[in-house]
Amino acid sequence: MNALCFTPARELASLIRRREVSCIEVLEAHLAQIDALNPKLNAIVTRTDDAARAEARALDSKLARGEPTGLLAGLPVAHKDLELTKGVRTTFGSPLFRDFVPDEDALVVSRMKAAGAITVGKTNTPEFGAGSQTFNTVFGATLNPWDTTRTCGGSSGGAAVALAAGMVPLADGTDLGGSLRNPASFCNVVGFRGSPGRVPARPAMNASFPLAITGPMARSVSDTAFFLAAIAGPDPRSPLSIHEPGDAFLAPLERDFRGARVAWSRTLGGLPFEPEVLRTLETSALPALATLGCDVEAADPDLHDADEIFEVLRAWHFEAMHGEKLRQHRAKLKQTVIWNIEEGLRLTGPQVGRAEIKRTQLFHRMAKFFERFDFLVCPVAQVLPFDVKTEYPMEIDGHVLHSYIEWMKSCCVISATTLPALSVPAGFSRGGLPVGLQIVGRFRDDFGVLQFGHAFEQAAGASVRRPPVLAG
Amino acid sequence: MNALCFTPARELASLIRRREVSCIEVLEAHLAQIDALNPKLNAIVTRTDDAARAEARALDSKLARGEPTGLLAGLPVAHKDLELTKGVRTTFGSPLFRDFVPDEDALVVSRMKAAGAITVGKTNTPEFGAGSQTFNTVFGATLNPWDTTRTCGGSSGGAAVALAAGMVPLADGTDLGGSLRNPASFCNVVGFRGSPGRVPARPAMNASFPLAITGPMARSVSDTAFFLAAIAGPDPRSPLSIHEPGDAFLAPLERDFRGARVAWSRTLGGLPFEPEVLRTLETSALPALATLGCDVEAADPDLHDADEIFEVLRAWHFEAMHGEKLRQHRAKLKQTVIWNIEEGLRLTGPQVGRAEIKRTQLFHRMAKFFERFDFLVCPVAQVLPFDVKTEYPMEIDGHVLHSYIEWMKSCCVISATTLPALSVPAGFSRGGLPVGLQIVGRFRDDFGVLQFGHAFEQAAGASVRRPPVLAG
Repeated sequence: MNALCFTPARELASLIRRREVSCIEVLEAHLAQIDALNPKLNAIVTRTDDAARAEARALDSKLARGEPTGLLAGLPVAHKDLELTKGVRTTFGSPLFRDFVPDEDALVVSRMKAAGAITVGKTNTPEFGAGSQTFNTVFGATLNPWDTTRTCGGSSGGAAVALAAGMVPLADGTDLGGSLRNPASFCNVVGFRGSPGRVPARPAMNASFPLAITGPMARSVSDTAFFLAAIAGPDPRSPLSIHEPGDAFLAPLERDFRGARVAWSRTLGGLPFEPEVLRTLETSALPALATLGCDVEAADPDLHDADEIFEVLRAWHFEAMHGEKLRQHRAKLKQTVIWNIEEGLRLTGPQVGRAEIKRTQLFHRMAKFFERFDFLVCPVAQVLPFDVKTEYPMEIDGHVLHSYIEWMKSCCVISATTLPALSVPAGFSRGGLPVGLQIVGRFRDDFGVLQFGHAFEQAAGASVRRPPVLAG
Repeated sequence: MNALCFTPARELASLIRRREVSCIEVLEAHLAQIDALNPKLNAIVTRTDDAARAEARALDSKLARGEPTGLLAGLPVAHKDLELTKGVRTTFGSPLFRDFVPDEDALVVSRMKAAGAITVGKTNTPEFGAGSQTFNTVFGATLNPWDTTRTCGGSSGGAAVALAAGMVPLADGTDLGGSLRNPASFCNVVGFRGSPGRVPARPAMNASFPLAITGPMARSVSDTAFFLAAIAGPDPRSPLSIHEPGDAFLAPLERDFRGARVAWSRTLGGLPFEPEVLRTLETSALPALATLGCDVEAADPDLHDADEIFEVLRAWHFEAMHGEKLRQHRAKLKQTVIWNIEEGLRLTGPQVGRAEIKRTQLFHRMAKFFERFDFLVCPVAQVLPFDVKTEYPMEIDGHVLHSYIEWMKSCCVISATTLPALSVPAGFSRGGLPVGLQIVGRFRDDFGVLQFGHAFEQAAGASVRRPPVLAG
């Protein structure tokens, strides 16, 4: 294994800028890593080796001539297969789009390219990103590098696995109900669900919908912030975009958290959890927080209605996005997508209105909560990575579940608040599976969440461990 | 009539700051103006003379001691009766709230107070701000100072009349389908519907609804921008708030518009207009634009669906806000409010979803349009101020109308775009009634719209004319 494949992105970018390593050398190392591991993991489902090599060589010439390059110059990256890539197949994990080749790039893709990143391919996702288990009928399932009989989570599962296995140092993802956080937790990498509009969504059919987030994933919080600096910032084509430049995320992450007021919400007010998830956080994450000198207090935010808000708005959004597909191509949709659209079809306008009013109330309750606390920390996922042949868990610790998204509530209820939320490696179960800590911050305090996540990550030390699949 | 009552707000604030005039002197002049004219016009429906006098004296002492004061220090202002005022009756124009006294201030009110403005009372509004004719069963109708047999428009009608009659130099308003723009046009003052989140709405039951806007009104664009500087800027309790400080609006408004590309949309693609509205704009506004050296071209933006988007989202929002009142107090609601809530009750979730998808498409079409043009100009209102005994026009130039908001489409379709829109005095009908020009700008280009409005206002010269009611 080439050490370049696990060099932090910031450092790799610096080595390239200083011409201590060439772009093509970095690229070849990563392509070799993909060759070696992707057959076992199925993280990257479409490859663009030739175009990548051409770009790497062009960038090397540019560097040789001393021309300016971007923040991510020469870093190999992969894009989630929900993001449009000009001239590169984009399936959304659906047989309906098996051969779809877009003629434009999504905004996150074009910003990564503009910053000099080199696309090596597309990462796997469940059909239309639905559900937190990465499988589809086009490419099959993506496997967890910590145990290849288990799921990597999702929907940004291909991205998480590609990072964990050293195939790329940075990968974009999206998150409606946990899709940046849950696969990060399952694969021991970092996923950041920023504030709505932090990374403007474009193109977006439902551009003002604040629960659908595009964001960065990496192997460390520091690299996540570095990546975010390249993809954040306003865009006039995105009505929700936050009016703050991306380079704000290049500020130093180091901060003293002694005395910071941190709420530890063990079960987010009574959600069922697999006991080993809680045990791991209590034995790994809480001691790490203690070493930071934080003032940690057990406290649950009042999340009543958060579940209803999320479920109503998710179904409503699914119907708006995919209702036409159900009418025309029902046989080519997976059952859970059909169910979610049909839930949306049953909604009345006033039900959607009630969900929005309750969402406002939840937003205000969270603001009150954050008068008492600087950060909220809680588990990312309610379960450990489960058998990849299980589409979704039907039971947690004796509690029967009723839908394909019910096992993800610990992420969904946080989505309903629209607050920034980070998934950061926190420790390992007794069976050696990764467990992530979810860090939630104040309204638009994306940078504060990253700073706290960075400090926690150093203290916990879990993110430096590499998955057994690398040993062959 | 005291000249202080028509001194521009910026100048008045400067005179006060330099102690060339005292706050109490300024206040008494305005209270006298209210005493003289309000009985004829009914603009200010709740007065707070005693509290205002106490504040003016306190502020004078502060100034005498050389202590710092705010941007609006000593300026008499009035708040729309839809905005909560702590300790001061707030009726929303509804008999249900005839005696309601809030225990908190709305954000716009608290920002005005924090900037040193002195509240003289509340301005009239139709019931729950519904409709662009200012009357209600609590206070009756507000009359147009240019012809007291006619309506002043609405729903910020009391504010527009108070400004036109010299009762206050600044007044806040709100706008869903034209409520800052239409009364400004009908009363020859300025109303500015800024971008969603420019003035954060708080409290807000439906805080993420982007069509409901709070904004400034004044007698000139310059004073409108000055006022906006005090009330704009982010607030963590408002999820839509724009991350840009308010004092950006204190930058110089002067700008050279020679060669600016301006689209003149005479009928916004075929809406019916009272011919005299168009004649007035063609004989007054277009020549003024020509003197600025703009490159004016007749061009209609593609606003198809804008009407459906607005009507669906308005009804949906009305039901969410007022549905409970219909269930409990039907007899105390006006017919048009009942109709609007019932329209909302009939909506399905997918209909709301379709409206949101179409709103995204409209937003993108407008962005394309604004690649060709710097500004869009069009009429504010489709009619001249009409008989105050008419609840709403049922016909325009031979076209039959079917609802109480149909005559306001020239404003509503612009609301659906969520772009910043200014109403600025442009000229007078042959009968001497004011006609406003609507200036629409690019996404979040609130300042550009104000700059262009300022230049236009100087060229048109209409805003300097005072209404005949002042003559007695």
